[in-house]
Amino acid sequence: MKTIALADYNIHVGDFQGPLNLFLEQSAYSQIFIIVDENTREYCYPILLEKTNLENHSLIEIRSGEQHKNIHTCSHIWKKMMDAKADRKVLVINLGGGVIGDMGGFCAATYKRGVDFIQIPTTLLSDVDSSIGSKLGIDFADVKNSIGLFKNPKAVFIDPVFLKTLPLREIRSGLAEIIKHGLIADKKLWDEIKDIDNLQEVDWNSLIIPSLEIKKRVVEIDPYEQNIRKTLNFGHTIGHAIESWALQSTAPLTHGEAIAAGMVCETYLSTEVRNLSDAEAEEVASYILKIYGKYSVKNEYFSDLLRLMKNDKKNANGQINFTMLDCLGSAVIDQHCEEKQVEDSLIYYAKL
Amino acid sequence: MKTIALADYNIHVGDFQGPLNLFLEQSAYSQIFIIVDENTREYCYPILLEKTNLENHSLIEIRSGEQHKNIHTCSHIWKKMMDAKADRKVLVINLGGGVIGDMGGFCAATYKRGVDFIQIPTTLLSDVDSSIGSKLGIDFADVKNSIGLFKNPKAVFIDPVFLKTLPLREIRSGLAEIIKHGLIADKKLWDEIKDIDNLQEVDWNSLIIPSLEIKKRVVEIDPYEQNIRKTLNFGHTIGHAIESWALQSTAPLTHGEAIAAGMVCETYLSTEVRNLSDAEAEEVASYILKIYGKYSVKNEYFSDLLRLMKNDKKNANGQINFTMLDCLGSAVIDQHCEEKQVEDSLIYYAKL
Repeated sequence: MKTIALADYNIHVGDFQGPLNLFLEQSAYSQIFIIVDENTREYCYPILLEKTNLENHSLIEIRSGEQHKNIHTCSHIWKKMMDAKADRKVLVINLGGGVIGDMGGFCAATYKRGVDFIQIPTTLLSDVDSSIGSKLGIDFADVKNSIGLFKNPKAVFIDPVFLKTLPLREIRSGLAEIIKHGLIADKKLWDEIKDIDNLQEVDWNSLIIPSLEIKKRVVEIDPYEQNIRKTLNFGHTIGHAIESWALQSTAPLTHGEAIAAGMVCETYLSTEVRNLSDAEAEEVASYILKIYGKYSVKNEYFSDLLRLMKNDKKNANGQINFTMLDCLGSAVIDQHCEEKQVEDSLIYYAKL
Repeated sequence: MKTIALADYNIHVGDFQGPLNLFLEQSAYSQIFIIVDENTREYCYPILLEKTNLENHSLIEIRSGEQHKNIHTCSHIWKKMMDAKADRKVLVINLGGGVIGDMGGFCAATYKRGVDFIQIPTTLLSDVDSSIGSKLGIDFADVKNSIGLFKNPKAVFIDPVFLKTLPLREIRSGLAEIIKHGLIADKKLWDEIKDIDNLQEVDWNSLIIPSLEIKKRVVEIDPYEQNIRKTLNFGHTIGHAIESWALQSTAPLTHGEAIAAGMVCETYLSTEVRNLSDAEAEEVASYILKIYGKYSVKNEYFSDLLRLMKNDKKNANGQINFTMLDCLGSAVIDQHCEEKQVEDSLIYYAKL
């Protein structure tokens, strides 16, 4: 059991039973709502009930998947809370991956101008990514996370017990963010990761904790993404565009698969715009391809992908904003390049 | 020209030309969006353009009226911003009454997790009410302001020039909030108001400024409505219910008309639950009836009205929460009463 303390809430890593029961005992909520999807209802909700004293609560079920992270699902959640006469003293428990954490948090933060919520991430991705940093929101007009806000949860409970309920593809998706944390800030973590061959034999806590420590350091210095927090966007400018694009295709990618491809492209850009060596770029590309395989990014997708990148929240004054690497373990923010170079990076990836 | 300084923004009361141009010169926004409705586009937008150097900007027009203060209109606003490739460095100018201020502010506060906005209220109601206090939001599931958040604008510009564009009914609507400020916190202000017979001959700044000073004092002590800010809810528990009810009828009321009726009812409750004298209650009722006339609240509406009150944000633990008066100029929060007494207050109003 490890507790990571942030300014006004704690992240508990390990068995949630003790700390969650203590949290509930010390609170006096008028009602408790648990948000689940069909998967977390089946695999995670029973574990939650077994370990806690959550006698009276209401379950709000939404459909799983990024395609449901939208304003219609928010209306469904708000309506359920309204119908149950939820007042301002209720607690919302988000039991699920990033979609539930981001959207359930957004709904809680805007219901009657804000009620308390806690995050119980159930995927490796949400363990190391959305569980920390207080970004809440939904997708809108085909752009990921384009509507939302920043607000801290009351607590986060990260328990590896839930990882056992996940398919391997979901584990791979989460690993991409851990890789990112290593590449932007912790060469030692990256060296540890690149020795992993078998994802079924990993002691996840030993990767989750350093990964959270990196993210904590960054978001505490820069909660609203004015500067250093942008390092966390490495791989995400191109990765988000690929993810949005794939979402509309017949073969959607997981977030991590898209970000993995984005990291390869942006590693290439780092050799063009910054001084990252070709050898370092190859080290990254070859590990990522070993774990993730390759997504087919054809030339005819390029204009769509560029359009999506231009609509990215991270941009300012019409320029596409990138985070790049100066070496493995060190990132630099607010980088720009020619559109041609972005296309070159996609060609580089396609030719690997 | 008077400037009221809050912790992190200023409210300028008087001619906006100087302070708004200065604000714009000192900023470096990538784009400017002005939100208007068909009325403020016709009557207020030309005044804004004439007095400022707003050369490049995009206009977003929405339909006027509380019935459009909903998530569909938000989607329209977000979509317009997205289509214009608005990044995080844009400014949103909300040029209108409370609907535009609350909803435009909510859209700005959630677009790409938050962009800057300023409020230029154009009605007396928004001058003294929504312009200060940072409550943003929309109506949802027939409940007013049930989705929203707290966020400060970058600045507020209150200029009486816009009041000349308003019909008398809108002026009366705003006066209700000034009456409320007097009743809850400033006997002197109340005494001044109750001498007003002709609403067309009022020096509004002399009422707006003390009214804003009262609201400022309250929201600075208690920004998130944990305690003293609830005094501002006087008249609003029953008033909101009447307003929501009327909104669905063929004869909708303005916010102020509904709150005026609510204040009469809650003044009656203050004589029942607190020690307000019958003479004081009569003084309030007779002035309000003189200005607002009487809305027909029939017995058969009572169950609907009670249902709406029970769904009010201000409630906790299933009890309807009221702010009441101990005397004219002094309010007390978190008061409760029997449902029967609420009905009695409606009967009292109906029989006046």
